[in-house]
Amino acid sequence: MHKLVLIRHGESSWNLENRFTGWTDVPLTPTGVAQARAAGNMLREAGYSFDVAYTSVLKRAIWTLWHCLDAMDRTWLPVVKDWRLNERHYGALQGLNKADMAREFGEQQVLQWRRSYDEPPPALTPEDPRGQRQDARYAGLAPEQIPLTECLKDTVARVLPLWEGTIGPAILSGKRLVITAHGNSIRALVKHLDGISDADIVSLNIPNGTPLVYELDESLKPIRRYYLGDALADERAKVEAGPHGQD
Amino acid sequence: MHKLVLIRHGESSWNLENRFTGWTDVPLTPTGVAQARAAGNMLREAGYSFDVAYTSVLKRAIWTLWHCLDAMDRTWLPVVKDWRLNERHYGALQGLNKADMAREFGEQQVLQWRRSYDEPPPALTPEDPRGQRQDARYAGLAPEQIPLTECLKDTVARVLPLWEGTIGPAILSGKRLVITAHGNSIRALVKHLDGISDADIVSLNIPNGTPLVYELDESLKPIRRYYLGDALADERAKVEAGPHGQD
Repeated sequence: MHKLVLIRHGESSWNLENRFTGWTDVPLTPTGVAQARAAGNMLREAGYSFDVAYTSVLKRAIWTLWHCLDAMDRTWLPVVKDWRLNERHYGALQGLNKADMAREFGEQQVLQWRRSYDEPPPALTPEDPRGQRQDARYAGLAPEQIPLTECLKDTVARVLPLWEGTIGPAILSGKRLVITAHGNSIRALVKHLDGISDADIVSLNIPNGTPLVYELDESLKPIRRYYLGDALADERAKVEAGPHGQD
Repeated sequence: MHKLVLIRHGESSWNLENRFTGWTDVPLTPTGVAQARAAGNMLREAGYSFDVAYTSVLKRAIWTLWHCLDAMDRTWLPVVKDWRLNERHYGALQGLNKADMAREFGEQQVLQWRRSYDEPPPALTPEDPRGQRQDARYAGLAPEQIPLTECLKDTVARVLPLWEGTIGPAILSGKRLVITAHGNSIRALVKHLDGISDADIVSLNIPNGTPLVYELDESLKPIRRYYLGDALADERAKVEAGPHGQD
């Protein structure tokens, strides 16, 4: 039996401001730091050990991992940073808050983007300063690999090759993994692992900074799946702002 | 021309208490965090870019790197953690302060250990709780690779294979490296690069949290060597407590 732990990053400054973040690289808030450390403390107290950690290339996930590892006294663990664990790219919505969006695109359209699995928001232009085509961290990618917008389906399409090619094989080789990532990259993994439908995955809520444990069999099929500190997680899920909270 | 940047970790809690640290995994002080961030700010303002970062497996060097990278907005850089960049192992001196040492081993003996390149302090026993034989981070090493004490010569002997086998080739392949490490693992690199004698290297001071830049030619011979923010570094070096400050 293999165990895999997924952690959505702690609260970021734009979660707090209710702005669509996507690939924008915003920091954790002090609450987000506390959530990350609480996750690490919980894992340590529950006796978890890891061999390697994965994270996105966005600092809210990276700092979540760093604080989590520090709370576990495991700063020395090898860490792999992969852009494919990034949040869904929100295109022209990046930086906007709910009020901006309603003003710019209309309530109905915004509602549709939120509920749709395969309809992406309007794309950024390649030159838009809110985009990532000039960002040094993506210099190794072909321009067409750096999205200008994504629907959740697109996010799934880039997360799964990382699962199939790297993470899954690492787990099968006996490595114990912790992954810190984002609402939608974790949804992509959960959708795949639990076989959740396109319609249902869009509204699945992943709370900030709460270790989600998968127990997997030899073919990486889930045997069990639970949040560590489940009561706490339930509390958190209740106060989330719905699908918006994932963005 | 290649550039390599070496940074000794910021002030640790045992630097402050004037205790011999070695492989003991003590945290940065708030001053140490500020030094690390200042190093990152200095590198950013001077226009430095890196492709990969190296650090030891000790949290004072790891957190120094993390804060430095964050100040540079480069948290996403790949980081390699290698035990061979650890501080010199201080054997039975680990945890002791100057007063303890004089009481336990006599002033004369302590002076000799400080000035000697090749005389190690008394070894820990393999079972000593101050030792690292049971530490999960070294589980991949053979017991005889985990020191029970080291003289500087021993530290040089384990740092150089990392230089020859990994760091040197990475630099030659065009990678721009930053390394956060410790007084004596940096001395080991400096001794090798600058061809410093056994006698002279022991008293060479490496200030905390100050980027030391090497410009290297195609055979990795130093062309120039300087501290970024040199005046500041000179100030710091003056207030260091002598060889003790490196431990």
